[in-house]
Amino acid sequence: MCPMINPDRFLSNLHHLRSFGAAGVGRGVVRPAYSEADIAARRWLAGQFRQAGLTARVDAMGNVFGLAEGPSLLLGSHSDSQPEGGWLDGALGIIAGLEIARSSRENGGPQVSVASFQDEEGRFGVTTGSSVWSGQLSDARACTLLDHTGVQLSDAREAMADMVTGRVDPGQFTGFIEMHIEQGPVLDASGDAIGVVTGIVGIRDMNITFEGQQNHAGTTPMHLRRDAFQAVSAFNTLLNDRLRNVVTPQTVWTIGHIALHPNASSIVPGKATFSMQWRDADTDRLTRMEQVIRDAAVDIATRHRMTFTHGPLLGLDPVVMDGRLRAALSDAAGHVVPGRWREMPSGALHDTTNVSRLMPAAMLFVPSINGVSHAFEEDTREEDLVTGLRVLARAVSTL
Amino acid sequence: MCPMINPDRFLSNLHHLRSFGAAGVGRGVVRPAYSEADIAARRWLAGQFRQAGLTARVDAMGNVFGLAEGPSLLLGSHSDSQPEGGWLDGALGIIAGLEIARSSRENGGPQVSVASFQDEEGRFGVTTGSSVWSGQLSDARACTLLDHTGVQLSDAREAMADMVTGRVDPGQFTGFIEMHIEQGPVLDASGDAIGVVTGIVGIRDMNITFEGQQNHAGTTPMHLRRDAFQAVSAFNTLLNDRLRNVVTPQTVWTIGHIALHPNASSIVPGKATFSMQWRDADTDRLTRMEQVIRDAAVDIATRHRMTFTHGPLLGLDPVVMDGRLRAALSDAAGHVVPGRWREMPSGALHDTTNVSRLMPAAMLFVPSINGVSHAFEEDTREEDLVTGLRVLARAVSTL
Repeated sequence: MCPMINPDRFLSNLHHLRSFGAAGVGRGVVRPAYSEADIAARRWLAGQFRQAGLTARVDAMGNVFGLAEGPSLLLGSHSDSQPEGGWLDGALGIIAGLEIARSSRENGGPQVSVASFQDEEGRFGVTTGSSVWSGQLSDARACTLLDHTGVQLSDAREAMADMVTGRVDPGQFTGFIEMHIEQGPVLDASGDAIGVVTGIVGIRDMNITFEGQQNHAGTTPMHLRRDAFQAVSAFNTLLNDRLRNVVTPQTVWTIGHIALHPNASSIVPGKATFSMQWRDADTDRLTRMEQVIRDAAVDIATRHRMTFTHGPLLGLDPVVMDGRLRAALSDAAGHVVPGRWREMPSGALHDTTNVSRLMPAAMLFVPSINGVSHAFEEDTREEDLVTGLRVLARAVSTL
Repeated sequence: MCPMINPDRFLSNLHHLRSFGAAGVGRGVVRPAYSEADIAARRWLAGQFRQAGLTARVDAMGNVFGLAEGPSLLLGSHSDSQPEGGWLDGALGIIAGLEIARSSRENGGPQVSVASFQDEEGRFGVTTGSSVWSGQLSDARACTLLDHTGVQLSDAREAMADMVTGRVDPGQFTGFIEMHIEQGPVLDASGDAIGVVTGIVGIRDMNITFEGQQNHAGTTPMHLRRDAFQAVSAFNTLLNDRLRNVVTPQTVWTIGHIALHPNASSIVPGKATFSMQWRDADTDRLTRMEQVIRDAAVDIATRHRMTFTHGPLLGLDPVVMDGRLRAALSDAAGHVVPGRWREMPSGALHDTTNVSRLMPAAMLFVPSINGVSHAFEEDTREEDLVTGLRVLARAVSTL
């Protein structure tokens, strides 16, 4: 049996959520954590939860919950976006949860609650909202985190302080399932409609700063320069070379953010701060990579006469999905799209990693067209979105 | 004989000019072209020119002149600063010119005019104001130039449109002398008080963009990435290697500005725009370097599956200083600080490069403490500033 879900209402709500921060080409969204668009979206979600017969609750971090009575299964994801994101990353899991919770109440199904975690996309840290909720990161430490422009989290979250009702007890939930777009090329390439996630890779994230000497780009001879950009470039080259002996083909590492100071064409940059992020399914390998990164940074700082400093090491360890929830998802997928689903790991990080510390947790994926995500072009065929909703609803009904 | 210059008034005016945009540590200044502080400083300068008995004139670019009657010698420099600059870079030459023009009028000396050129520091181009005044760059082309944040020059200069009186005819000037801080380590290291400039190096400046594919930093395998930061880093490494066969120990090249897009730690950067600047005393070498740069960019674009585009090639050719003006400066230096001056080339670019296309032109340098410039820490001993003023005044009195 399957609850009487309403695919049109689900798609309509998904499009409505995109209207908060709709931007860029295609179905792009600009809705970073604590932005005006993000807070407006969270206000709308709380209203939707209430209309669905759930009790809306918001904690100090800005995580928004719609609570059923008594013990319940929690569905959800995050509604903040990357600086340039798509309409489905995070949003899909919340709106699917909302539809299933609502239809479940309408049809006397199981108790289902819904959550939208805050700052999954890491404006301030890594899955910041669910990290705090799950106790991986203290609220006090979270408050001191800065975004790339120097804004402190404690100041940013003030903008939604009027919504806060207090802490939400995780003890009331029997488990958590997050439906998400794959954000990679596997399902799109194989033609499968559903991926049941086996585990989520771990991630480490650290800001690194090299500081040399800012000076005039015309009068400072090359051999006397202490050029921070040259240090970053040399570090990157050295690191790529040294990591070859440590990584697997699935390991990834990224320098995605860089800020030169003063960032002017006629000035030898005296300072460079950049993000260093690495991911792998094996905790030991993550630690070995950290050592390679630190050693390379120290070596470059010495060779280029730089000072080397870094911010806090943020991150999450790899996790495996709960067997019972995963089996329910596999059974449902086998029923709804027989022969068109697969088991797979998640190379992307998700709130599920944090929530799995508190309760049984699992995930399912739908395909991303061309594997594109974290970009305006991110998209999934609506038929695949509805298939995901049906599989999740069926799995929930069997739990 | 020497005009009755007033060193206290000179230093006092120099400190007053610093008050527009005073910032940072020490005697730092933030007064980029067309900023509020820059326009306020130009308004104050125009007032000072009038008080000194000169006629104040401002052209469409925002170059500010104080004109003596009939044919006159032009002294000056620029009053805009780097995004983080010092109190003397440019300011010194204008305030020295103001003091000499004023004292010359007070004491019946020669006709001396003064100029403050606009955007020497290259918010929009390379010595933009004097480039347009000297006819090296058309006003129409200048208007289309963009700064690093995308602001167009034509929009930026609107903020000082009320000051504009019209074009200033270069035909009225018999020559141009620019006094400037050295901005390098030579005089500070040798203990000389004055440098008489023999020639100014040439410069080329071009923005380069690599565009690949923005994507998720967790789900995109390393071998499938088209990471624009990796392309910049590889380009930098390749370029440093290839330039070794082309350059001299005096040649310099700099990547001082970089903008990744979208510049987030969890996203493979799809686009990187950076500044590429190179300087040398030989025009042919500048052209050979351009070819090396273009070839390296094309090779990297191919290897990393990027598109390569670039902005307009801006620049100025090397120039030699006028013999008669240079001799007057050397004679004056020999009189004021016998045995404590030297002839030297300028590794920094100056407005004199442009003005030398129109009339005989020369420069003199005073020492920079530790050779530091284009930084808040830039400074020169006040005794050295006054020595420079005395040498310039003496040279002017003999012309």
